[in-house]
Amino acid sequence: MSSSYGERFRLTIFGQSHAPAIGVTMEGLPAGIAVDEGRLQAFLARRAPGKSPTATSRREADTVEFLAGLVQGRTCGAPLTAIIRNTNTRSHDYDNLRDCPRPGHADYPAQVKFGGYQDVAGGGHFSGRLTAPLCIAGGIALQVLEKLGVTVAAHIQSIGDVDDDGFDPAEVNAVQLRALLEKPFPVLRDGAAAEMKQAILAAKADLDSLGGVIECAAVGVPAGWGDPMFGGMENRIAQLVFGIPAIRGIEFGLGFPAARLRGSAHNDAYYMDGSAVRTRTNRHGGILGGITSGMPIVFRAAVKPTPSIAQAQKSVSLSKGQNVSLEVHGRHDPCIVPRAVPVMEAAAAIAILDAYFCAGTNTKEGSPWI
Amino acid sequence: MSSSYGERFRLTIFGQSHAPAIGVTMEGLPAGIAVDEGRLQAFLARRAPGKSPTATSRREADTVEFLAGLVQGRTCGAPLTAIIRNTNTRSHDYDNLRDCPRPGHADYPAQVKFGGYQDVAGGGHFSGRLTAPLCIAGGIALQVLEKLGVTVAAHIQSIGDVDDDGFDPAEVNAVQLRALLEKPFPVLRDGAAAEMKQAILAAKADLDSLGGVIECAAVGVPAGWGDPMFGGMENRIAQLVFGIPAIRGIEFGLGFPAARLRGSAHNDAYYMDGSAVRTRTNRHGGILGGITSGMPIVFRAAVKPTPSIAQAQKSVSLSKGQNVSLEVHGRHDPCIVPRAVPVMEAAAAIAILDAYFCAGTNTKEGSPWI
Amino acid sequence: MSSSYGERFRLTIFGQSHAPAIGVTMEGLPAGIAVDEGRLQAFLARRAPGKSPTATSRREADTVEFLAGLVQGRTCGAPLTAIIRNTNTRSHDYDNLRDCPRPGHADYPAQVKFGGYQDVAGGGHFSGRLTAPLCIAGGIALQVLEKLGVTVAAHIQSIGDVDDDGFDPAEVNAVQLRALLEKPFPVLRDGAAAEMKQAILAAKADLDSLGGVIECAAVGVPAGWGDPMFGGMENRIAQLVFGIPAIRGIEFGLGFPAARLRGSAHNDAYYMDGSAVRTRTNRHGGILGGITSGMPIVFRAAVKPTPSIAQAQKSVSLSKGQNVSLEVHGRHDPCIVPRAVPVMEAAAAIAILDAYFCAGTNTKEGSPWI
Amino acid sequence: MSSSYGERFRLTIFGQSHAPAIGVTMEGLPAGIAVDEGRLQAFLARRAPGKSPTATSRREADTVEFLAGLVQGRTCGAPLTAIIRNTNTRSHDYDNLRDCPRPGHADYPAQVKFGGYQDVAGGGHFSGRLTAPLCIAGGIALQVLEKLGVTVAAHIQSIGDVDDDGFDPAEVNAVQLRALLEKPFPVLRDGAAAEMKQAILAAKADLDSLGGVIECAAVGVPAGWGDPMFGGMENRIAQLVFGIPAIRGIEFGLGFPAARLRGSAHNDAYYMDGSAVRTRTNRHGGILGGITSGMPIVFRAAVKPTPSIAQAQKSVSLSKGQNVSLEVHGRHDPCIVPRAVPVMEAAAAIAILDAYFCAGTNTKEGSPWI
Repeated sequence: MSSSYGERFRLTIFGQSHAPAIGVTMEGLPAGIAVDEGRLQAFLARRAPGKSPTATSRREADTVEFLAGLVQGRTCGAPLTAIIRNTNTRSHDYDNLRDCPRPGHADYPAQVKFGGYQDVAGGGHFSGRLTAPLCIAGGIALQVLEKLGVTVAAHIQSIGDVDDDGFDPAEVNAVQLRALLEKPFPVLRDGAAAEMKQAILAAKADLDSLGGVIECAAVGVPAGWGDPMFGGMENRIAQLVFGIPAIRGIEFGLGFPAARLRGSAHNDAYYMDGSAVRTRTNRHGGILGGITSGMPIVFRAAVKPTPSIAQAQKSVSLSKGQNVSLEVHGRHDPCIVPRAVPVMEAAAAIAILDAYFCAGTNTKEGSPWI
Repeated sequence: MSSSYGERFRLTIFGQSHAPAIGVTMEGLPAGIAVDEGRLQAFLARRAPGKSPTATSRREADTVEFLAGLVQGRTCGAPLTAIIRNTNTRSHDYDNLRDCPRPGHADYPAQVKFGGYQDVAGGGHFSGRLTAPLCIAGGIALQVLEKLGVTVAAHIQSIGDVDDDGFDPAEVNAVQLRALLEKPFPVLRDGAAAEMKQAILAAKADLDSLGGVIECAAVGVPAGWGDPMFGGMENRIAQLVFGIPAIRGIEFGLGFPAARLRGSAHNDAYYMDGSAVRTRTNRHGGILGGITSGMPIVFRAAVKPTPSIAQAQKSVSLSKGQNVSLEVHGRHDPCIVPRAVPVMEAAAAIAILDAYFCAGTNTKEGSPWI
Repeated sequence: MSSSYGERFRLTIFGQSHAPAIGVTMEGLPAGIAVDEGRLQAFLARRAPGKSPTATSRREADTVEFLAGLVQGRTCGAPLTAIIRNTNTRSHDYDNLRDCPRPGHADYPAQVKFGGYQDVAGGGHFSGRLTAPLCIAGGIALQVLEKLGVTVAAHIQSIGDVDDDGFDPAEVNAVQLRALLEKPFPVLRDGAAAEMKQAILAAKADLDSLGGVIECAAVGVPAGWGDPMFGGMENRIAQLVFGIPAIRGIEFGLGFPAARLRGSAHNDAYYMDGSAVRTRTNRHGGILGGITSGMPIVFRAAVKPTPSIAQAQKSVSLSKGQNVSLEVHGRHDPCIVPRAVPVMEAAAAIAILDAYFCAGTNTKEGSPWI
Repeated sequence: MSSSYGERFRLTIFGQSHAPAIGVTMEGLPAGIAVDEGRLQAFLARRAPGKSPTATSRREADTVEFLAGLVQGRTCGAPLTAIIRNTNTRSHDYDNLRDCPRPGHADYPAQVKFGGYQDVAGGGHFSGRLTAPLCIAGGIALQVLEKLGVTVAAHIQSIGDVDDDGFDPAEVNAVQLRALLEKPFPVLRDGAAAEMKQAILAAKADLDSLGGVIECAAVGVPAGWGDPMFGGMENRIAQLVFGIPAIRGIEFGLGFPAARLRGSAHNDAYYMDGSAVRTRTNRHGGILGGITSGMPIVFRAAVKPTPSIAQAQKSVSLSKGQNVSLEVHGRHDPCIVPRAVPVMEAAAAIAILDAYFCAGTNTKEGSPWI
């Protein structure tokens, strides 16, 4: 089903932007996992709206309420359900969207698919607000991965024409990633944050919006996670990441530029680093044949500019069959890229944890069936 | 499971490069669909090896044999299983890969995951040869989609540094796509084919390989196919496309360049084209919120250079824990991009057909439950 | 995942007996379906606790709260999530169950599986209380099925040694079933209710409990729903029904007694009833080869006696490795059969509706792909 | 999809009675498992047709051919596909079944569902012949379970009115089960085999058929396998067993008779057997709350009499809308119960192995995430 993801760590996201609540049910977590609700709330705060002039003015506390699955702070083996109540909703902003679809939004396809019964308020189930429950699941996945020695963090690779430095894919490490997680506007290059914010505010002043690219890394993943063909680590991550609104592309390792290289320049040579097998370079981004190599996982995702802009735009009246001019009201982010950073980390963590649980029946020394 | 794909048109691919056979079982096809085996075989011939100096010298007839599911040339509602016998196998080429993993291949991760029990001959289940059964499923999906008015075709967007023109995403149409399907080396720009072949042969002469980008379009898909969140058309296509070996990235519509635009320059304005709703531009690539808009679906995928090159490369001996020099024998494509074109069409067709079947319970005029 | 069910009408049940809430998320319902909350609440009232001397004294209003998926009383195509707050919980009753497992309960297997982290209060996720969210999903499924002309109802076939009459499987009809739905203690034979209640009270007076059998019928299901092999209507219903606590067996049509007949006495002869194909008898219970025949669907499920009894029982102390005597406190039903009747209807409705949605790609006159 | 089963040990069965082949693809088996093809073939021989006067005269060698997934006799982590070629087919026997459905068969429902495109020859995909690939998967599952210390065997509980003794559910053990596996006609009571064969031949002489009950046990399954709710061991086994043609009911432990007992007479008391927790009786059949208790798993399934009988029967002509008399030709078993015994063992083994693989993320001592 389309609002569910995962094989062994399975999550189902529910809610609409202006429904009573949004939330997530997680199945497959073993019993006994301690969930640190304080850290989870702090993780969610990184994507919560209403904090800065570069984001939407909608304010939501985004307080996580666990309805089921926790006993004295630990998972009990039953599904884990957490919700966030929607409070600051103003549904009258969206009244005419059933007839006049907003360019760049799901309004028109949804109208055709759902015959007019879809929830249009605030984008309904298509809203970026649904990334909050994704972050609940991801925040918990990150806590579990931490116990397995895995660290995940992302930075803003670019906003509009302002570029950050990229990760050194062979050298990126947990220390560097943890430092990134502390930054309110996570970039690698000094000065990039200020330039990016400036670009966002300039677009906002023009009643316009900006997109960008997010780069995400996971370190500490051992070799052997992920599966062949459609269960590859890229497949898993991509299937999840395209569930985040506004994503237009994803690339792993060197990505699209790899298509311009020769094999001799693209292959990563193996060497022994003590008793460990490593590659000196990491153009493969930590994944070969869908399975992790032990090198850092690195991928980038392109985020389109927020389609909701305050300028008048050309649309149609579906009922009248006429061209019309549309002004989009409501409260929107001039650029969602900064708030999408923890969402990308959440997505990576969920996909990696699911792959780990799927690897449970791998062949290991001493497997009883051999 | 990782060798399976799809929700309502469900395929499971089996086989290894040097197993007795490779094949696919397809579930979910309604009964009564006529399968044109001649056209299917012709479709497979487009990706079959052994045809040109730019491809591997391994020759396989790739004759499709239906084991089950067809009665007098039509589906009967039972699973459809088709196989291709492997004949031209030379497994002794691969003897030492369990110990010395090839750079850029799945050898090392597979060794860790499968404890040495994986099939190394010819890449085993990771081989590009497994795209042949994907093309069986895709070839059938294409025949079904044709009946639904959908045409799918791809072209080589680039090989190495040689670029083809791109599709005009708002204007690409079935006539143009069908012409492309007739070309042995499908490009849009006159002269691009010769330049690309030249580049491949130059790399081959240097004992090297090349990658490239494939652009794929589907026209005739009406608005309303695909699902929100993780069942979006991009999610479906991406999950499938990353199952093709060597894919490093995928982008929809304008893709990564969208991240550098402002919203006002990226949004596609709606207008009435007679009684049809269309967009004048198609930077969104025919998909909004995961659901088709009725405009052409356009995406591109990056293919890395073939990792198997005849040059000596640096690797390790896993048993000795030492660095070694490795020479990869066997027969390989200096560039797999041309042969991957029909594979990309197959992948798109499978994902789109699955989305169509999933849309079976959409809300339509006269639905009994309203 | 084990708390999820269904292919196209997919539900995930969450909650524990003493968690803040229990609930269900339903995916796959088309947009536009009107949900009558009043009738849903009335349906739930049929299984709610605390109503009669033959049931547990735990009182719960079981008020359904929709968190997501409804807009102005209609489904909107997004997941539908509904919860029931748990209010009347007394967790101190269950303190020692982690060490001394109750006979006939899941305590010991759960202790082994979940390593002691399972929720023991009130049976946790194993509690019969989790049939309330199943009834939410089932109540909605029943409303949808009604629009499709399908009526589902069950009666108490037996409690202890008191037997009700059985359905006439070839003649049972919607009028008869609707009458059954009005009865607070649904039986077919006059006098059976009083005898059964008497048996329950007698068992209760002896600090004991009783089991029974429930017979369920669905009429109005046309021929052609359900799928071959593992997707047969029996498979679907059985997979769901064994998710109800205390079920020990299920049989379709004539069931176990069929094993004693000869084929000539068991086969149901076809005949034309006007233009309709019917069978004169209905020993097959409306299902052949997993697919509905158009005759009424009839099945029976055996419910074991409530394992919680007030008598002292023999158990063990897991920590001490010693035999001990155990007295089970808490509030329990001396017989859950009456409250399980609507649960069985819910299960049947869910399975049938899922099969209907799965049949969306059946071959029909005018299918576009033929 | 309806011809697939399982979560972590996933099998897809394909083929029709008279297709070129029948077969199965198994996903999820870890790499490195040795498959003893000789023992597998011997297991299949137990259900193969053409051996005795009590079975069909259709003769098939049922030779298993592995197409993929095995390397030097061991699984390699890729899907395992095995087929059996159909050789002894006589399709002309079935020509008129599209118009005149056989009583007790899937002909009529299939005609409605598949619009006449279904394969009618030999029952097509509904044929009992499809239990051969189920036995391939089951035979391999049994070999794996043996390595895990689990033994599975079934006996004929009854045929017509001839009853065998039942297992002593608390005492049944591997020695007893292995002895049963050696018997050509597996029963517990001396003399039962001869009486049953006599009953079958009597029915055959009357151009009639018989049904029966099969009882199956699995010993050596430790406590803690299986999952709550819909993933319970009963749910898993039932979903699979109803995929075997002609099954009309299934019951676990004491089964339907449990419904007549009081709780005090039904609950199984725990006691310490040295350091092991056991129950003195085993009315629960080794499963509580869907999870194994460590006691033997015991279940029974009812098999209806073979619907194909040589007597003239009443049916209809679908094209003419008239009642007609039908004589069923073809070769059929007067009683399939003996041949269904290994099928039941296969089903149990598959379900139990899948549950074992699903238990991979159970909470165990030293789990990294606690």
